[in-house]
Amino acid sequence: MADDARRPFSRRDVLLTATGAAAALAAARPGSAQPPAAAAGSMMGVPFERRDKVRFALVGCGGRGRSLLRDLLGVPGVEVVAVCDVLPDKAARAQDAVEKAGQKRPEAYTKGERHYEELCRRGDLDLVYVATPWRWHVPMAVAAMEGGTHVGVEVPAAVTLEECWQLVDVSEKTRRHCVLLENCCYGWSEMLVLNLVRAGMLGELTHAECAYIHDLRGMELFKTEGEGLWRRAEHVSRNGNLYPTHGLGPVAQYLDIHRGDRFERLVSMSSPSLGLQSYRDRTLAPDDPRRRETYACGDMNTSLIRTARGRTVMLQHDVVSPRPYSRINMVSGTKGTFADYPPRIFFDGQKEEEWEEIHRHEGRKKDGVEDRFEHPLWKRLEKEAETSGHGGMDYVLSWRLVQCLREGLPPDIDVYDAAAWSAPAALSEQSVALGSVPVAFPDFTRGAWAKTRT
Amino acid sequence: MADDARRPFSRRDVLLTATGAAAALAAARPGSAQPPAAAAGSMMGVPFERRDKVRFALVGCGGRGRSLLRDLLGVPGVEVVAVCDVLPDKAARAQDAVEKAGQKRPEAYTKGERHYEELCRRGDLDLVYVATPWRWHVPMAVAAMEGGTHVGVEVPAAVTLEECWQLVDVSEKTRRHCVLLENCCYGWSEMLVLNLVRAGMLGELTHAECAYIHDLRGMELFKTEGEGLWRRAEHVSRNGNLYPTHGLGPVAQYLDIHRGDRFERLVSMSSPSLGLQSYRDRTLAPDDPRRRETYACGDMNTSLIRTARGRTVMLQHDVVSPRPYSRINMVSGTKGTFADYPPRIFFDGQKEEEWEEIHRHEGRKKDGVEDRFEHPLWKRLEKEAETSGHGGMDYVLSWRLVQCLREGLPPDIDVYDAAAWSAPAALSEQSVALGSVPVAFPDFTRGAWAKTRT
Repeated sequence: MADDARRPFSRRDVLLTATGAAAALAAARPGSAQPPAAAAGSMMGVPFERRDKVRFALVGCGGRGRSLLRDLLGVPGVEVVAVCDVLPDKAARAQDAVEKAGQKRPEAYTKGERHYEELCRRGDLDLVYVATPWRWHVPMAVAAMEGGTHVGVEVPAAVTLEECWQLVDVSEKTRRHCVLLENCCYGWSEMLVLNLVRAGMLGELTHAECAYIHDLRGMELFKTEGEGLWRRAEHVSRNGNLYPTHGLGPVAQYLDIHRGDRFERLVSMSSPSLGLQSYRDRTLAPDDPRRRETYACGDMNTSLIRTARGRTVMLQHDVVSPRPYSRINMVSGTKGTFADYPPRIFFDGQKEEEWEEIHRHEGRKKDGVEDRFEHPLWKRLEKEAETSGHGGMDYVLSWRLVQCLREGLPPDIDVYDAAAWSAPAALSEQSVALGSVPVAFPDFTRGAWAKTRT
Repeated sequence: MADDARRPFSRRDVLLTATGAAAALAAARPGSAQPPAAAAGSMMGVPFERRDKVRFALVGCGGRGRSLLRDLLGVPGVEVVAVCDVLPDKAARAQDAVEKAGQKRPEAYTKGERHYEELCRRGDLDLVYVATPWRWHVPMAVAAMEGGTHVGVEVPAAVTLEECWQLVDVSEKTRRHCVLLENCCYGWSEMLVLNLVRAGMLGELTHAECAYIHDLRGMELFKTEGEGLWRRAEHVSRNGNLYPTHGLGPVAQYLDIHRGDRFERLVSMSSPSLGLQSYRDRTLAPDDPRRRETYACGDMNTSLIRTARGRTVMLQHDVVSPRPYSRINMVSGTKGTFADYPPRIFFDGQKEEEWEEIHRHEGRKKDGVEDRFEHPLWKRLEKEAETSGHGGMDYVLSWRLVQCLREGLPPDIDVYDAAAWSAPAALSEQSVALGSVPVAFPDFTRGAWAKTRT
């Protein structure tokens, strides 16, 4: 072992940063630069004003918006007063649906891409849903809150960190809630796991995994309408986890994020970008202009998040590989582990070293985990949810939000959750661009995360 | 948005490093400091000398060693000439097994913990297996190679990076092979996947996942004999992925690591350390001295590895949580995805968005993937492997290594693989200790990885 100066390794030899990143790596300790307190106080735990009827408007009447509208028309106490879309035809279809449900035909706002601002200034709204392309979420949510109404925003709430902070600032200033419409938090499995976790059945939690793995190549990204018009462009310009909330939202709830813990740092790595190019080379006509596009986004992005209490989350994004759908939805603790796709559980001390599958419908076991821990909301809404989108979770989401508004409860998912669950998109882009360096997770709650709540 | 100097975020604000790590973060580009060429030339692709008989010795006659010995006694052309253990009783059991198999009683080396050195100096050996506690692997492998014999080392080959380099240096200097006894590379599923990948069935690969998830709390870590005597100590002093090779070996083969690609950087994150403490608090007597131990190792370690060609590997380690066993063993490309536990596959263009399960025994489909891509070695050895350890993979491993020695082929797994598959243990410890910074993966091949080989 006499030969060279290479060994023993100094830390200097082993540590890597991407070219040019070294100067940017400050020695700041996580949390050393606490953001200032909100000018107007936190919105955390602030209840809605109680009301009997919820006067509702829909901004964005595409496929997603109209699906949300159908659910809301089945929720007691909702009065749809206005709809908005740049395409008059889509707004008209939404108006028709409202009339067909026995309500007065709502007013339509269809005069160009700024007409939503007039809708937001009506002054008679309790709740607006925003179901538009990602880049419009924040301007529309801000206009709604500044117009005096609470707002529900489709996922992700925001694209950049600046946008995340903007939502927090405006919510605190206007005292209006900005709720993320994260339907997956209301999934049958996810609510069952939340119940299991809160009952202590998995012991002290240490690790969770989640994802958005959904082959969208043909379904969305190369369509010549709807999301096909804008969503592929995100893959041209960005490289990271573009769509983190479906996986991360439920997991954040299991881990009591903003209820005694918070996301503190993130590292991220992307695989090569091959899926979209390979797909379009095989399927598009030789003269299709989309053949000249270049895609920046790696096929699989894997991010690791560490919380203030040291728990870890593995978060993935892949919408361009040939794979069956999965949000993983796994959580592990000192007494057991749950994992989804298919839903299954393992408890410490079990005789057989095998997962026990959990069944919502067929195969459901009497007195099994599914019976004992099914969430009360699902027991109550199973029937109404049956015909709703995404296995019923969409209906439960809207039913529950309307319930919070009518009964004067705080929302389940507030602006801090909306910001923290959306932020991994921008944070992963930064980490990937700099060679997988760790990046600090902003504390959108300005310190209020440490309070435990039930 | 008027309020403060916090926004917009500079990169300096967002980037994090653990306290004290900043000074160590050099701006070195990956690969800028190429290690010097080997004094005596690479051992990559170097064939064994052809021989009829393989004169074999076993160092370490515990449970693992004797299981390997049983397999070797069933492989044609192997003559067991010596065994070694610090416990004479264990060596005697190994001697008995050899005699019972109809061979001459091998010589035993049992005089203290350095007696293996004498065994290695015999001068009449072709192959030594090292199946001892981790900290003894390198000194014993080095003694074997310096004594003129090829060596097969149990996993992990080495604990530190310095040890990894030592194996490489000694193998190159002595012109003896150091083969990692990574049995999982010879698993039925793993070899089938290798076959699928090499046939191009998954397209161009982008991402892989692997793990060692195995609840060892009761089985190994708290036993009062065997691995219980030393393995728990690794969890007291280290925090990272202590046991990477079972997952990473097969995946490295799918990705052509050291056959046109190499591992280039790694980031790692550990969850809190709760599992061992929680287990021993519930199961050990109040006055048991092990109750005073403190465990450094996080229950779940997740590491991300990026290759020179940009592919990504997610690598996990959890041996203390209540979960069923898994090595994940997943690989994804532009044309399909394979995942294990249970083994299943998805090909691009399939009608149903569902995995197709692959069956080795019951449920096996004629002309299915299992029939068309089962590895020829398995077709040939199925019967002999049946009674062997770990579902037969142990027998296939030893049979194949002996075949390479007898037919004068290069080994499937060489010293560079042994070093690169073992190195994530030390690299993950470094990354975790410094707050999940990226660390450079040493190029143990000194540049020879870039050559493609079949």
